[in-house]
Amino acid sequence: MKVVKFGGSSLASGRQLEKVLQIVTADRERKVVVVSAPGKRYAEDIKVTDLLIECADDCLQNKDPKEKVAAVLERYAAIANELNLSDGVIQEIHDDLLTRIASDKSKPDRFIDLLKASGEDNNAKLVAAYFRAQGVEAHYVDPKEAGLLVSDEPGNAQALPESYLRLNSLNEQSGIQIFPGFFGYSLSGEVFTFSRSGSDITGSILANALKADLYENFTDVDAVYSVNPSIVQKPKEIKELTYREMRELSYAGFTVLHDEALVPAFRAGIPVNIKNTNNPSAPGTLIVNERDNTNGPVIGIASDKGFCSIYVSKYLMNREIGFGRKLLGVLEDYGLSYEHTPSGIDDVSVILRENQLDEKIMDEVINRIKNELHADEVKVAHSLALIMVVGEGMRRNVGTMAKASKALAKARVNIEMINQGSSEVSMMFGVKEVDEKRAVQALYEEFFVPVTV
Amino acid sequence: MKVVKFGGSSLASGRQLEKVLQIVTADRERKVVVVSAPGKRYAEDIKVTDLLIECADDCLQNKDPKEKVAAVLERYAAIANELNLSDGVIQEIHDDLLTRIASDKSKPDRFIDLLKASGEDNNAKLVAAYFRAQGVEAHYVDPKEAGLLVSDEPGNAQALPESYLRLNSLNEQSGIQIFPGFFGYSLSGEVFTFSRSGSDITGSILANALKADLYENFTDVDAVYSVNPSIVQKPKEIKELTYREMRELSYAGFTVLHDEALVPAFRAGIPVNIKNTNNPSAPGTLIVNERDNTNGPVIGIASDKGFCSIYVSKYLMNREIGFGRKLLGVLEDYGLSYEHTPSGIDDVSVILRENQLDEKIMDEVINRIKNELHADEVKVAHSLALIMVVGEGMRRNVGTMAKASKALAKARVNIEMINQGSSEVSMMFGVKEVDEKRAVQALYEEFFVPVTV
Repeated sequence: MKVVKFGGSSLASGRQLEKVLQIVTADRERKVVVVSAPGKRYAEDIKVTDLLIECADDCLQNKDPKEKVAAVLERYAAIANELNLSDGVIQEIHDDLLTRIASDKSKPDRFIDLLKASGEDNNAKLVAAYFRAQGVEAHYVDPKEAGLLVSDEPGNAQALPESYLRLNSLNEQSGIQIFPGFFGYSLSGEVFTFSRSGSDITGSILANALKADLYENFTDVDAVYSVNPSIVQKPKEIKELTYREMRELSYAGFTVLHDEALVPAFRAGIPVNIKNTNNPSAPGTLIVNERDNTNGPVIGIASDKGFCSIYVSKYLMNREIGFGRKLLGVLEDYGLSYEHTPSGIDDVSVILRENQLDEKIMDEVINRIKNELHADEVKVAHSLALIMVVGEGMRRNVGTMAKASKALAKARVNIEMINQGSSEVSMMFGVKEVDEKRAVQALYEEFFVPVTV
Repeated sequence: MKVVKFGGSSLASGRQLEKVLQIVTADRERKVVVVSAPGKRYAEDIKVTDLLIECADDCLQNKDPKEKVAAVLERYAAIANELNLSDGVIQEIHDDLLTRIASDKSKPDRFIDLLKASGEDNNAKLVAAYFRAQGVEAHYVDPKEAGLLVSDEPGNAQALPESYLRLNSLNEQSGIQIFPGFFGYSLSGEVFTFSRSGSDITGSILANALKADLYENFTDVDAVYSVNPSIVQKPKEIKELTYREMRELSYAGFTVLHDEALVPAFRAGIPVNIKNTNNPSAPGTLIVNERDNTNGPVIGIASDKGFCSIYVSKYLMNREIGFGRKLLGVLEDYGLSYEHTPSGIDDVSVILRENQLDEKIMDEVINRIKNELHADEVKVAHSLALIMVVGEGMRRNVGTMAKASKALAKARVNIEMINQGSSEVSMMFGVKEVDEKRAVQALYEEFFVPVTV
């Protein structure tokens, strides 16, 4: 069987829901459908989730939320209208929303989670009603009854291990199960949401729990591109990539699927198919455990801005047992996570995401490194970009680095840093942010554009 | 003024001492001369220091050391004979040696240090006697009287900070000061030797303490070569290199000057000139703080075998604050020093010198990483070589990596690892040991052999 997840833009209008129905009923294996809240119908539209957050804010500030409530209800009503559904389901959504708004606000984070979750929860009810109206056996699934138990961390809930066994019994239900994404229930019965992209997480958990053959993730692109389309026009689509490749690409800015969302499917070895609701016959991109790599060494190039490096030098550093550990210990004291630590003989750089530090913390960190580790020199470089060149095929490919560095040299990009050799599926270049775009374009040219003689 | 140090081969015979005298008296600035013990006269010869170690071993095993004593005395006597010196100095050396042999053996390490140090100490007396016999004002300096105070670590003494001020008064002495290398005295008045190449250390300490303008280090090569002559025939000589370049090259197998020996001169910013006793008119190699880099980006290529890597992978590793520190903490518990830690998103490799671990320690380390850090995978790669491509000029040189990696690809060398970007003066490649020689040759061809059209 297949777990199928539809994103917000796939559920934004009645027209979109018709496509969803066609897709689901076209394959008898599609038994569990995870739904997001209705998303944007056009660029300036507001997602239901964002309306709900504004609604919660109004309530917490003792403002009358009725405008926001009306706006939310209007979205569901528009869909129901378009699909000629009876008023019953809209009344149900209306009552549910008022019940939530009237509930306890003493813990604001939890109240926000309760309202946010209604977007998916009510959309699942609507989708189930529509399927049934079309003569398809479909059931709304209450995550509480189904047993999706989560930790009590507002906005960042984690599935509890016992969820997997409980959710497995969904396999025994008849018809199509419509499961709301994005949230679960704590052991004490309260609603907690996952982090953003939380419906992807729900789908991944269900795919694992139900031992699905495939996890289909429907969104609004035909496939994952090999490079950011805002940097390179009409880039090549990726047909198949491995979890590891996806994770390396996600790290540096690929946002089609949130990398943490993949973990449950990854652990169970279930392939993930990213497909387009608006073009379901396109094969999409398949994320698998292993793949043939007959298409050259590189599958994708990703890049991300906003890094800085702390350079530390000390004569005879490499003779000093414990230096590296102490250095990382200082960062840990400030809760800073670091990305990489390229090192020479007497020097080491620590690469971090810049948004973790303000000037004050940076000064403290530098002073502690100078004073406690007796470094000869500590200096900081800002505004770095990291570029990941990713592909399982580069593992045993002599000359990939030569091609990549030649392309960068030709584009007059100075390589600030290279990290290669730990991951077998990627190499990483650090460049100045101003060089990022030029560097990515040069690498794409080198690895993806066929040479015309 | 200049501090001048002569190595063992420069002092192995009367003929060599004549050269030393000529060199020292040819420049009035050469006021302090540091001497090693007599070295080898020919390939199969035994160094006096090695004879003294055998002598100490005999004494500690209650064997009669007279043969070894005779062999040591015979070396000094041969030099004295060749130079027509009076018997007085040989009698003095004989008496000194017997006094040392008769001394306390309850601490064997200290006894060995006491005997080893006599090689330099007595040679300084001999050299001073020869200089005087030639009408040159020269004085043997007793390191105890001069104030070269060291820590009480046998075979690994470190100069105490107060030494520097005390030794400075040597500047006020008239004539040429002949200073024995390799040892100093502890606060309690006992002899302790430096690590191997200890006479280089003595010279470096004196250059610092006396604020010398230059530290000349006379040995038996015309210059430091840009690459190991056993890998590339007749490689280019290096005219000038910086401390940092020297240190990076030393790290990976360049042995002309021991890198730790440079520290005191480095701290005082004193240039070091490596010269050839047998060809003193050759300019040699000058080690400086800064240099022009007009000769291309690369100054030298060094390589060293005997490394291994421990590869650790864990999904979502980079979200886990403290992972790196804990990993390095495990290594520290076993007293293991590591060289580099190239990292990907979900994986990190630790590169270590293989001779630190036996199979048992490796198994324990791997088990602790698996169990305490919950790693998904831990694996070990043996028999790696590290190649350092070194040069101040590569700091801002676009395309150096492209040239290097192209050369390696052409030579069909797979790059296991690259570490670049922390040190501004080097890039490091990890390759399999079997590829080492081919890789170094290819890099040398690329950077040093002029293209002939």
